Amino acid sequence: DGSGTESLDYEVVENYAYWEEQEQRGKLYIGYYVVVKWFFALLIGMGTGLAAVFINISVENFAGWKFALTFSIIQKSYVAGFIVYVLINLVLVWSSVYIVTHFAPAAAGSGIPEIKGYLNGVDIHGVLLFRTLIGKIFGSIGSVGGGLALGKEGPLVHTGACIASLLGQGGSTKYHLSSRWLQVFKSDRDRRDLVTCGCAAGVAAAFRAPVGGVLFALEEVTSWWRSQLMWRVFFTSAIVAVVVRTAMGWCKSGSCGHFGSGGFIIWDLSDGQEDYSFEELLPMAIIGVIGGLLGALFNQLTLYISYWRRNHLHKKGNRVKIIEACLVSLITSFISFGLPLLRKCSPCPESDPKSGIECPRPPGMYGNYVNFYCSKDKEYNDLATIFFNTQDDAIRNLFSANTIHEYSAQSLLTFLVMFYSLAVVTFGTAVPAGQFVPGIMIGSTYGRLVGMFVVNFYKKLHIEEGTYALLGAASFLGGSMRMTVSLCVIMVEITNNLKLLPLIMLVLLISKAVGDAFNEGLYEEQARLKGIPLLESRPKYQMRKMTAKEACGQRVVSLPRVVKVADVVSILRGNEHNGFPVIDHTRNGETLVIGLMLRSHLLVLLQSKVDFQHSPLPFDPRSGSRPTRHTPSEFIKPASSKGISIGDIHLSSDDLEMYIDLAPFLNPSPYIVPEDMSLTKVYNLFRQLGLRHLFVVPRPSRVLGLITRKDLLIED
Amino acid sequence: DGSGTESLDYEVVENYAYWEEQEQRGKLYIGYYVVVKWFFALLIGMGTGLAAVFINISVENFAGWKFALTFSIIQKSYVAGFIVYVLINLVLVWSSVYIVTHFAPAAAGSGIPEIKGYLNGVDIHGVLLFRTLIGKIFGSIGSVGGGLALGKEGPLVHTGACIASLLGQGGSTKYHLSSRWLQVFKSDRDRRDLVTCGCAAGVAAAFRAPVGGVLFALEEVTSWWRSQLMWRVFFTSAIVAVVVRTAMGWCKSGSCGHFGSGGFIIWDLSDGQEDYSFEELLPMAIIGVIGGLLGALFNQLTLYISYWRRNHLHKKGNRVKIIEACLVSLITSFISFGLPLLRKCSPCPESDPKSGIECPRPPGMYGNYVNFYCSKDKEYNDLATIFFNTQDDAIRNLFSANTIHEYSAQSLLTFLVMFYSLAVVTFGTAVPAGQFVPGIMIGSTYGRLVGMFVVNFYKKLHIEEGTYALLGAASFLGGSMRMTVSLCVIMVEITNNLKLLPLIMLVLLISKAVGDAFNEGLYEEQARLKGIPLLESRPKYQMRKMTAKEACGQRVVSLPRVVKVADVVSILRGNEHNGFPVIDHTRNGETLVIGLMLRSHLLVLLQSKVDFQHSPLPFDPRSGSRPTRHTPSEFIKPASSKGISIGDIHLSSDDLEMYIDLAPFLNPSPYIVPEDMSLTKVYNLFRQLGLRHLFVVPRPSRVLGLITRKDLLIED
Ligand SMILES: Nc1ncnc2c1ncn2[C@@H]1O[C@H](COP(=O)(O)OP(=O)(O)OP(=O)(O)O)[C@@H](O)[C@H]1O
Ligand SMILES: Nc1ncnc2c1ncn2[C@@H]1O[C@H](COP(=O)(O)OP(=O)(O)OP(=O)(O)O)[C@@H](O)[C@H]1O
Ligand SMILES: [Mg+2]
Ligand SMILES: [Mg+2]
Repeated sequence: DGSGTESLDYEVVENYAYWEEQEQRGKLYIGYYVVVKWFFALLIGMGTGLAAVFINISVENFAGWKFALTFSIIQKSYVAGFIVYVLINLVLVWSSVYIVTHFAPAAAGSGIPEIKGYLNGVDIHGVLLFRTLIGKIFGSIGSVGGGLALGKEGPLVHTGACIASLLGQGGSTKYHLSSRWLQVFKSDRDRRDLVTCGCAAGVAAAFRAPVGGVLFALEEVTSWWRSQLMWRVFFTSAIVAVVVRTAMGWCKSGSCGHFGSGGFIIWDLSDGQEDYSFEELLPMAIIGVIGGLLGALFNQLTLYISYWRRNHLHKKGNRVKIIEACLVSLITSFISFGLPLLRKCSPCPESDPKSGIECPRPPGMYGNYVNFYCSKDKEYNDLATIFFNTQDDAIRNLFSANTIHEYSAQSLLTFLVMFYSLAVVTFGTAVPAGQFVPGIMIGSTYGRLVGMFVVNFYKKLHIEEGTYALLGAASFLGGSMRMTVSLCVIMVEITNNLKLLPLIMLVLLISKAVGDAFNEGLYEEQARLKGIPLLESRPKYQMRKMTAKEACGQRVVSLPRVVKVADVVSILRGNEHNGFPVIDHTRNGETLVIGLMLRSHLLVLLQSKVDFQHSPLPFDPRSGSRPTRHTPSEFIKPASSKGISIGDIHLSSDDLEMYIDLAPFLNPSPYIVPEDMSLTKVYNLFRQLGLRHLFVVPRPSRVLGLITRKDLLIED
Repeated sequence: DGSGTESLDYEVVENYAYWEEQEQRGKLYIGYYVVVKWFFALLIGMGTGLAAVFINISVENFAGWKFALTFSIIQKSYVAGFIVYVLINLVLVWSSVYIVTHFAPAAAGSGIPEIKGYLNGVDIHGVLLFRTLIGKIFGSIGSVGGGLALGKEGPLVHTGACIASLLGQGGSTKYHLSSRWLQVFKSDRDRRDLVTCGCAAGVAAAFRAPVGGVLFALEEVTSWWRSQLMWRVFFTSAIVAVVVRTAMGWCKSGSCGHFGSGGFIIWDLSDGQEDYSFEELLPMAIIGVIGGLLGALFNQLTLYISYWRRNHLHKKGNRVKIIEACLVSLITSFISFGLPLLRKCSPCPESDPKSGIECPRPPGMYGNYVNFYCSKDKEYNDLATIFFNTQDDAIRNLFSANTIHEYSAQSLLTFLVMFYSLAVVTFGTAVPAGQFVPGIMIGSTYGRLVGMFVVNFYKKLHIEEGTYALLGAASFLGGSMRMTVSLCVIMVEITNNLKLLPLIMLVLLISKAVGDAFNEGLYEEQARLKGIPLLESRPKYQMRKMTAKEACGQRVVSLPRVVKVADVVSILRGNEHNGFPVIDHTRNGETLVIGLMLRSHLLVLLQSKVDFQHSPLPFDPRSGSRPTRHTPSEFIKPASSKGISIGDIHLSSDDLEMYIDLAPFLNPSPYIVPEDMSLTKVYNLFRQLGLRHLFVVPRPSRVLGLITRKDLLIED
């Protein structure tokens, strides 16, 4: 569909307002600007870190309290416990879906495809607004706390991006939260860098993985990258790490309720498997293949379901969305409570005092060996250990070392099938939803399953099933999201085990290759479905044989230099184009392209009316200096908002008879390509420079000069 | 000077030979091409890994054998031991400098500035040749084994790049080591990607840090970067890690002599300091400031000395270079042997059986507490522990935990001053030399010094001096090389301590900021000195006010479509330009720019002579199809070689009277910019697309079409 999308202008419009602003700025301004950029990076880091801590505290407390309550009730009655459990989940999920549907529709889903689109040059209405930020934070508390099969990581990336974008435009004008002195970043180009920082901060906060965050922003979301940006992004991530670490240190004393029990490393595996042998590479490769297959299947299934949802279910309005989410919550609660009930308990293994793992888990604690619906005291329910638990704890249990034979193959398989289906169904409901944690859950389940076989098969080796669970998690994420370097680093950072790096790499290589054989990555598929026109970094193969002229079919709609207001209005009404070439006539009657006029700038001119003139003659600079009537900030459109449209502008019939001289307002030198340049080259130009409009012109008749490397080596 | 540099052509020249080749290739070819690319990445990884293992084995055995011999001799006579030590060092250094001066001059130095230049689009003669590869490998064995104050890491990056480049052009034609079926990558553009892989492989091999290698390649050396490339670079690094790990496993049994005793992690700090407190941030910040100051000073001093060397010393020929290196070797040997002699030994501390550290070190072992010129048995010489040791062991000793109070402040200070001076003097001698390890040595010395004060000052805290040494190392590298993310990750990977990440980040932020206040990074400074014209990613500020026309001053030298051979020769003789616009005349007498002809292609045409024609009329395609006379591979110039020059071409006077029709051979659509485009925009275009020539043309008179995002969204 793509109706809500619009391209961003990364090009600097070097019009007279820009030049006048440049004149006023000295060398000092650059220093100021750099300082502000770093200051904003600091603010983004702190903001995202605090948002993450807030979400974490809330989720862990809601979920912890929910499980504690349920466990205390089931001591007396399983039915009452079940009802309480279901109701708490339902209320949390309902609050989430209500916030999203009634207040911030753009907060649904993970938000990563949208941010990816933004950083590729496409703005989607509503994605970076203040209300979306609020909806995302509170919505994901509800949806994650409510026990749905989704995570809070994707939403945190979106949260970081929103914080960055709002800071970048100096607050939210709609809610009167803006401040003039914050409005330093006036172009889409500057904001792009901030949003990149925000993304990295989101991942850094979600996984407490600062390096992973930087790499995620680089590899997965940004389309343009510079060394300098990397350093600032890195700084932001470091700030996030410090904020989160400080908050966790403060929470350790118990002042944050259930939150703060774990360390900074989310799923510490540093005391896991020390070494691996050559024979283990085969089962690990198999994990990679499974990951690729299941990941690709996941992408395909979610694509079909999202497609169906969009075209049928969600057309029926918000009520249906709410009912749907509540239904999914009910099913999830039923399964996660009901299936463990059906499972027979196993006797506790001989307890090993060294490992410090107790069986069954004492009440009020988190960890392995959950006693749930067991007849005897020294028994545990392996299905409940992973199902009837917060996701973080379930993953910790799946990754855990020194717990060989904790799970039966049957339980793991049941969990795999059920959770996979739940994750597919939950994807696309109108709540904030990340796919990282569900992916890790799914992957670590089959990983551990493979690990169990390996333990049985290669008896002599010192093998930890938890290591295989980790590899499984990596393989599923690789097969579904097709991330590589960043995923690898995130996995290392969340488990604190550098030694497994080559193995994670191997598994990722395989799972990504297998997945790529079937379809595109999750985010690309979803972006396509949402009508976000992403430009890949490489031109398509068939572009080689096309020329620039062939790509642009229509007759060009252009404007003369001095144009009648009525004509402008009719042109703007008559088409949807966002940019118009401006053509002037020289003295000897020849035409000359003098620049590009953006629709949004034309609308600003029409609205302000101060530039209207009675004469159809161009303004002559020799007749005295023109007063500055516009500052560049007037031409700025806030991110993700529709801006003014031609329908909003009301002009009297006198106005319509006036003229505007466009020369001072246009972009005097848009990039140009000769008509028979191959589309590959055109694509490279367009994509690398992040353009919005490109003029196709006739072959030149003369070359006035050649520019080579030497000409661009200007010393300060 | 820059006389030996030449720009690379990253643009695809879409001439008729290109089109004919494209015609012959089906969809299958793309698959083949991708497979070959990955296969080459594999080969690069294996090659670089093996080269690194070879260098490591040789260096460790030479150095190990040297120290073992010296230690056994000094049991009887210190004078004899000293003489043997000095001689061994001298012979090793002499062999290194001899190889470099007589066989591979381009192998001197670290090679990173040159590779950085190559990946920025400047080819330097000799840098990527087979002889340079050989010179680099054997030279760095000599220089590092000979105990000079330099490392093998920079040379390994260069080695990786050479391997990649040689593979990319199918071997070395000069030494008849090439193979036709390997010649798949015919453009500079493809080779660029391979060289990026090679760089990453080099770092991955040097530090056994695969992620660090990828980031180093991205942040520090490449100028153009794509997501897809990242994945392949990552794969290469993973292969390196596997190769090195396998080799080390194989060496563990003792089959490689002195090599293989350490683990995969070079300086394992994972059992170091667990936590840090707020009060420690101040001394850490001080370390950052010291690092910035000393690093910037290092850059400045080495710049002056290199400048002086180039303009005075090294002009006098190879003999002077050899004498210089031998002198430096003598001084280094004197200092490293002599200074510990002057130092009084300290009594051994109470031995702690838990830490497993013995004092004094038993003979034949590596580690702390070296007994050197001590009168009593239970004594050690702290200066010898760091000075009279291989660099790897010295660093391990400086980083080591559980050895508080091992060093006296006086010894560390002496070492710092002496080693810093040695590193400055050694830099720029005609041997392969990396700056990483010396940087780590210097940094960890003052880091440990600060750590000692902290231990004395904050008595109650659990502080390890080794942690401060690590931070010092990071700060010095940050202050000198100005790397950020990659350095951080490399530090984490070589010490296996993720917990220190935020601290390393903090220290790096400070040291880089302090260093940037004084000068540019080491590699940039050196590149500038060597006349490598690097284009930074950002345009200079004053470019805003310049136009394209102003940047290119000279009158354009252009060619007509059908040109007389004699004219071509005189034009090529008359100037140094590498590209010429080709101008044609239309029927109605107007001129038309039809493309760009490269000097190198013209030379190929002149040499082969098959395209000479008698008539001055253009070839008419309707008169029958022209036979293919050239394949694109004929137009390829191997990397780092001078190629043919106009002086090599001999034409008879008959030949000179003939004509060539250039139309089939030219690049039909070079990028163009209008004359009054601001130089900032021109710079962005030139830099982002990696161009070599750009035409400045008059403003167009018409716009034939507009290209927007929508026009480029072509489905497969
Ligand atoms: N001034 C114009 N005259 C003629 N055709 C135009 C003009 N501007 C754009 N087009 C064509 O119209 C089509 C859509 O144009 P449009 O301006 O909506 O761009 P877009 O790709 O949707 O990007 P944006 O997000 O900027 O709207 C494209 O095929 C483009 O070539
Ligand atoms: N055909 C030409 N006609 C006129 N001036 C040219 C021409 N080609 C290059 N120049 C100018 O000559 C100067 C040096 O040109 P040259 O071709 O040597 O480029 P360079 O920057 O040294 O890069 P390269 O490595 O390709 O030689 C530049 O200022 C350039 O503008
Ligand atoms: Mg549009
Ligand atoms: Mg030149």
